[in-house]
Amino acid sequence: MAVKRSWVESANELEGDFPVENLPFGVIERDGERRTGLAVGDQILDLHACARAGLLSGEINLDLRALAVSGKARKVRHSAAEWLSEAGHRSRVQPCLVPQSSVRMLPPFEIGDYTDFYASIHHATNVGKLFRPDNPLLPNYKWVPIGYHGRASSIVVSGTEVKRPSGQTKAPDAAAPVFGPSRMLDYELEVGFFVGEGNALGEPVPLHQAEARIFGLCLLNDWSARDIQSWEYQPLGPFLGKSFATTISPWVVTLDALEPFRVPAAPRPQGDPEPLPYLTDERDRLRGAFDIQLEVSLLTARMRAAGDKPARVSLGNLRDLYWTPAQMLAHHTSNGCNLRPGDLLATGTVSGPTPESVGSLLERTKRGAEPLALPDGEQRKFLEDGDEVILRGWCESEGHARIGFGECRGIVIS
Amino acid sequence: MAVKRSWVESANELEGDFPVENLPFGVIERDGERRTGLAVGDQILDLHACARAGLLSGEINLDLRALAVSGKARKVRHSAAEWLSEAGHRSRVQPCLVPQSSVRMLPPFEIGDYTDFYASIHHATNVGKLFRPDNPLLPNYKWVPIGYHGRASSIVVSGTEVKRPSGQTKAPDAAAPVFGPSRMLDYELEVGFFVGEGNALGEPVPLHQAEARIFGLCLLNDWSARDIQSWEYQPLGPFLGKSFATTISPWVVTLDALEPFRVPAAPRPQGDPEPLPYLTDERDRLRGAFDIQLEVSLLTARMRAAGDKPARVSLGNLRDLYWTPAQMLAHHTSNGCNLRPGDLLATGTVSGPTPESVGSLLERTKRGAEPLALPDGEQRKFLEDGDEVILRGWCESEGHARIGFGECRGIVIS
Repeated sequence: MAVKRSWVESANELEGDFPVENLPFGVIERDGERRTGLAVGDQILDLHACARAGLLSGEINLDLRALAVSGKARKVRHSAAEWLSEAGHRSRVQPCLVPQSSVRMLPPFEIGDYTDFYASIHHATNVGKLFRPDNPLLPNYKWVPIGYHGRASSIVVSGTEVKRPSGQTKAPDAAAPVFGPSRMLDYELEVGFFVGEGNALGEPVPLHQAEARIFGLCLLNDWSARDIQSWEYQPLGPFLGKSFATTISPWVVTLDALEPFRVPAAPRPQGDPEPLPYLTDERDRLRGAFDIQLEVSLLTARMRAAGDKPARVSLGNLRDLYWTPAQMLAHHTSNGCNLRPGDLLATGTVSGPTPESVGSLLERTKRGAEPLALPDGEQRKFLEDGDEVILRGWCESEGHARIGFGECRGIVIS
Repeated sequence: MAVKRSWVESANELEGDFPVENLPFGVIERDGERRTGLAVGDQILDLHACARAGLLSGEINLDLRALAVSGKARKVRHSAAEWLSEAGHRSRVQPCLVPQSSVRMLPPFEIGDYTDFYASIHHATNVGKLFRPDNPLLPNYKWVPIGYHGRASSIVVSGTEVKRPSGQTKAPDAAAPVFGPSRMLDYELEVGFFVGEGNALGEPVPLHQAEARIFGLCLLNDWSARDIQSWEYQPLGPFLGKSFATTISPWVVTLDALEPFRVPAAPRPQGDPEPLPYLTDERDRLRGAFDIQLEVSLLTARMRAAGDKPARVSLGNLRDLYWTPAQMLAHHTSNGCNLRPGDLLATGTVSGPTPESVGSLLERTKRGAEPLALPDGEQRKFLEDGDEVILRGWCESEGHARIGFGECRGIVIS
């Protein structure tokens, strides 16, 4: 095993998310300040405290955006891994640790723009089938990494309550719409990726340089009000059905940490077109996807009251996407659109080929037609008040430390 | 005439945009600083210089976002109108003026999120007819103020060159798409409105309070690559066909300045449904629309070389919209979506009922089928390199000073 041990004992747990090989970046509020930290076991290494203790040069700007742009994040993570692995550093480093349970996590970046893709062909097919059984995939799907602009202001960090939105909805047989609380509130299991170095307006990022612009990944729940969405979305796409809340996990897992879990892009089924040249790169095809397990669990109010554990309702994998993160980013800039540091791109719902691996209730319950049975006997067509949705993600492979994403949680309130 | 005279002579020109009754806010770069100013005639009143000269209390935060939120903008404009009208103030105020021609304008706000609506029923009908001749308007149009999230990062201020985007396009009879420069580049004549005081996530702004959240208006050109858009937009809406550039005029005209030009919302044709209760407010119906003339002019490279003036290609009016600005803002927040100070909402293409009043070449040329003849004998299906698009907007009414928006210009380069 190449797995490193740390004197932070909780970092050595086999099922833990944050061994010293991971050290994802996050932003905490501490002593009234916004500070950058690294997760290790159940602790956070406060980088500002490290600088004050003389461990880090005072010249490094520790603002996470600055770290992401300057390229110094890698050096900081490497240094921290050394401090946290070697007992000789313990006395100086220990005072810079703070328990995760004791601080409030902030969103890792001020997100200028948020873009959501639609990169799971299984998701696109499942959703398409509900509306067009004979022709689920639109003709552009296999050519264009479909995406849309999302709402940045309503992105919240894990643990924030999500208020059930109201909006216009119209039953198929109704003469007119009504305004009221959504009755088809859903989650969407997604992975987000943050931009590090941006690009100037008018200067596309070619595919072979695209991945270098991705600072790291997080989990993302793109909460969706299906009834609002289906009435409003033509012809300009999702709007209020999505913009009431998007939850992200607070820790940004770097591509360095994910290096051992690179896999080839999902093979295209026979007969599918090759991507156009601007979306073709041999290295990306061979190593541009990531083997990340993604789980959705649900904890209902009744389960919570009974002391039950959350029930897994989906297990998928990021490797099943039709487009790689780099392809999405290159496509995004192909018209000259500028990405700025801290911008967030997301994959769209990650669904696999089986019912147990779909990333939304819309798909799992066939728009409510086939309710999902929970272990305690409850059923769900869509989310009810008091339901908590918990996303988790992790990478596992023989000979490597388990790299986890932590949790992305949100409870529905009315 | 109730029109005020100013000792700034250029402010008294009858055809001018910036009399003392207007005094729109803008942000300039001066001495390496970002400063807030007011346009008056061909000058700018530098508010930071005013504060240093003791004209304004040093306690007022002159950052435009702060002014928009604090509600002090009104007081500042009123004071400035007095200084600029009364000769006795001239010696102290004159040194705070700077010619518009001598400074660089910056975008008035750092725009967190940009939302574009589709509020002109004439535009929606014209565009719908190109795709669905028998059924141009979708069933939701008369109920929902349709909108979508736009791209904030690529919003540029008037005068910025606009690079023709490349992208995937597919001819109807082609087997596969190709990647290359857009051949159907278009403008869209719009009006933008900036948010002053925002709202917290989960707390909708009711319609009767919505207009108070609008700080002011600007002109907006939502450049559109029609060929990219038509191939990519299903099912999630416009993306790269729009996100390469959006140009705004630099001056924010306040609702106070527009007060004399309030008009009732456009009457709904007989048979159209009444808006749902959350979109109904008697005051908004009677006074929530604005009588603003909106013009598009075109200056081609050949016209420029010949010394010709720009040719008007469209003249419309904001009062023709199907939804008022307040209805759009209230709808936007109806699901709890939070608006932040400086956020930009736009109307969508403003088209009137006649061919001469449509706000895009797509409509004017019927997607290129009927080219537009220019005065010098040139024709246009869509924009060519070297074409400069110039938007202007103004209000005129007997007994009131003319209130103008200045220009929103952009030249297409390759």
